[in-house]
Amino acid sequence: IDRGDAERLRELLAALHPADVADLMGFLSSDYRSEVVAHLDPEALAEILSELDTEIREDVLEHVPYATLAKALGEMDSDDAVDVVDDLEDDKRAQVLAAMPEIERTAIESSLAYEDETAGRLMQREVVWAPQFWTVGQTIDHFLKEADELPELFFDVYVVDPSHKPVGAVPVSHLLRTRRDAPLAQVMEAITEIPVQMDQEEVAYIFDKYHLISAPVVEPGGRLVGQITVDDIVGVIQDESEEDILALAGVSDAGRDAGVLGIVRSRLPWLILNLLTATIAVSVIAAFQNEIAKLVTLAILMPIVAGVGGNAGTQTLAVAVRALASRELNASNATRIFLREICVGMIDGAVLGSVMSVAVFLWFHDLRLSLTVGLALIVNVSIAAVVGTLVPLTLDRLGRDPAVSSSVFVTFATDSMGFLSFLGLAAVILL
Amino acid sequence: IDRGDAERLRELLAALHPADVADLMGFLSSDYRSEVVAHLDPEALAEILSELDTEIREDVLEHVPYATLAKALGEMDSDDAVDVVDDLEDDKRAQVLAAMPEIERTAIESSLAYEDETAGRLMQREVVWAPQFWTVGQTIDHFLKEADELPELFFDVYVVDPSHKPVGAVPVSHLLRTRRDAPLAQVMEAITEIPVQMDQEEVAYIFDKYHLISAPVVEPGGRLVGQITVDDIVGVIQDESEEDILALAGVSDAGRDAGVLGIVRSRLPWLILNLLTATIAVSVIAAFQNEIAKLVTLAILMPIVAGVGGNAGTQTLAVAVRALASRELNASNATRIFLREICVGMIDGAVLGSVMSVAVFLWFHDLRLSLTVGLALIVNVSIAAVVGTLVPLTLDRLGRDPAVSSSVFVTFATDSMGFLSFLGLAAVILL
Repeated sequence: IDRGDAERLRELLAALHPADVADLMGFLSSDYRSEVVAHLDPEALAEILSELDTEIREDVLEHVPYATLAKALGEMDSDDAVDVVDDLEDDKRAQVLAAMPEIERTAIESSLAYEDETAGRLMQREVVWAPQFWTVGQTIDHFLKEADELPELFFDVYVVDPSHKPVGAVPVSHLLRTRRDAPLAQVMEAITEIPVQMDQEEVAYIFDKYHLISAPVVEPGGRLVGQITVDDIVGVIQDESEEDILALAGVSDAGRDAGVLGIVRSRLPWLILNLLTATIAVSVIAAFQNEIAKLVTLAILMPIVAGVGGNAGTQTLAVAVRALASRELNASNATRIFLREICVGMIDGAVLGSVMSVAVFLWFHDLRLSLTVGLALIVNVSIAAVVGTLVPLTLDRLGRDPAVSSSVFVTFATDSMGFLSFLGLAAVILL
Repeated sequence: IDRGDAERLRELLAALHPADVADLMGFLSSDYRSEVVAHLDPEALAEILSELDTEIREDVLEHVPYATLAKALGEMDSDDAVDVVDDLEDDKRAQVLAAMPEIERTAIESSLAYEDETAGRLMQREVVWAPQFWTVGQTIDHFLKEADELPELFFDVYVVDPSHKPVGAVPVSHLLRTRRDAPLAQVMEAITEIPVQMDQEEVAYIFDKYHLISAPVVEPGGRLVGQITVDDIVGVIQDESEEDILALAGVSDAGRDAGVLGIVRSRLPWLILNLLTATIAVSVIAAFQNEIAKLVTLAILMPIVAGVGGNAGTQTLAVAVRALASRELNASNATRIFLREICVGMIDGAVLGSVMSVAVFLWFHDLRLSLTVGLALIVNVSIAAVVGTLVPLTLDRLGRDPAVSSSVFVTFATDSMGFLSFLGLAAVILL
């Protein structure tokens, strides 16, 4: 299909949703992709670019001439355009920006000036506003006259004061159902302003909490500079929770189309760190070599104590990381939740310890061995609860992401304490 | 503050966003809460109820008289009302429904008939529609006349054919910028229909992919019965990713305000299962008792092989679960990704094996021991890659949630294979 008929290809693509075209591009080889891209006009390219995955987009961008790309960027919402420009290599970026009209270039450059993952990067500059002294009727008439200037789609009209500070918002559906002579200032609703420098995770939290559809973004001085809409937030929420899942498992994201080496690079550092901590943890075992030589059963049972402790720690950690992310866990209830986790750990430990005591007695018919395993499990599962809560809380208080590197600490603690508690108790009780 | 002044309390609460009031309620003890609730009128109660966490809401609902609750439910969007009614105990539910007007009761009852976590449950029945032969002007005039009948906020007007099947949608902002004499059929956009029985995870995927703000929900016959808006989707996405994080760590969600026993109940089953699999895994060690008795160093090194393998398995598992959730991993590329993971596992294993070989040689000055550790790590990390990909893929193909119970399988495999590969190789090479 791809070879001959350019006209027909264009028709086919036009009939599809840009997100579906982007999916298709993912399945094509790089050669075919550049073939397809060559047939797209700037408008079609603009729609597809923002849907493509980063790696595929980088590949596509290499085949697009500067002039076409500059035109496509002009067609895009400013937030999507900034995203694309951000991905370009430095020299290509300069050339593309040079090919754009002054106004659009300035807009993109000033957006790029905001830090990554802040409201300033997330926002689009296209925003619909009206002065506070207008009536509903004046506003609607103005929109009809200036229809070409309006964004494709908008949900709120921001009402601004003479210094261009937002003072309220009127949802578009309210404009439709209100009498024409009502002043905007009377029908507008309270707004939640988002400062440009706010972290995107915080922005997502606010959108979720107050069920916002869109919110005005303001400069430090309070002037309206853009807006964030909820569809951008959906992406942020997914990215952040994906980050948490991967970070808890000790993986840096390698991207969908990373090669084998890219993936190795994203995982090996954590595995080497784990190898190091595991080596330190087993040095505890080395200290008890004589005891193990006397009673090999100890070598059989010690991984159980360490492993179950590790699991209990992972549970506590995942719950704490999630609670921190959703702000259910915060300074005001940290102590209460910490104490609750310790109680849970002790009860879990007691149950697991009892079960294992009985099992070990049935297996080895040694009452003191079964007592040792039981006590060690109680100790290690309780320690797991303490560490699994304390590590993410501490990282969070230090301003670090509690999901990253927590599990290394927790596994290290449950491994070494598992070996120490079991072998130490064994040395006291058994030998 | 809570005691004396009812009037002032009501004023204070009215000044706050319902989400903030709900937060405050979370901090109050149950007694104070019922005090506050007693002072709320049905409208205020309606706004707050949908913001409360489940446990707190249950507590609050116990203190609200049937009649007030019935009125409050009438004020709520139908999706929120259904949520609340779903939480009520059976006898209270019947009494509250009986106190509601016929129409609202029927609406709630038929929504409850849809399965949990489907589009039917997620949707609100309040939906704005217009016949396809109307013009933009007719539609706007109709809204002005019937303003009281319209939902508080809406984003799209669904255009329906005579059999009430949706044929397109007009975003409200388009109504504002289009000439009054344009027929709706001409300005409407394509819609993505959501069947009532669609799973909410699938709905969220569609919203994210096509950047939808709202979508019409249709009955099996194709009739428009409601709509889903993106703000409901934000909640779904957070719930689903939270489920994945917790499931991977082996925790069932106990809810924010669960007591110690509730939490124990959510974690203990997984820990007991883990205790069981760990016991089976260490039975591998029992088979090599004699070898360990001869060379205690084996007992020191074997947890490293098992532990690093477990980590590599967790990494692969987390990446696979996430890729399955975002549909980056599917039937069309499963084989390719599986092979890629095996390559990654072998390379990671080779690097880790080499590092550890050198370390062990430096530690114990035993070339054959260092060779054994190195080979065992290569074997176990490769197995981890296979299992970490295959387990979630298989669960997914069986129609099960790939996040739930995967880690139990993977840990079991990497533990037992870690012990087996290391001790087995040791038996062959060393002894």
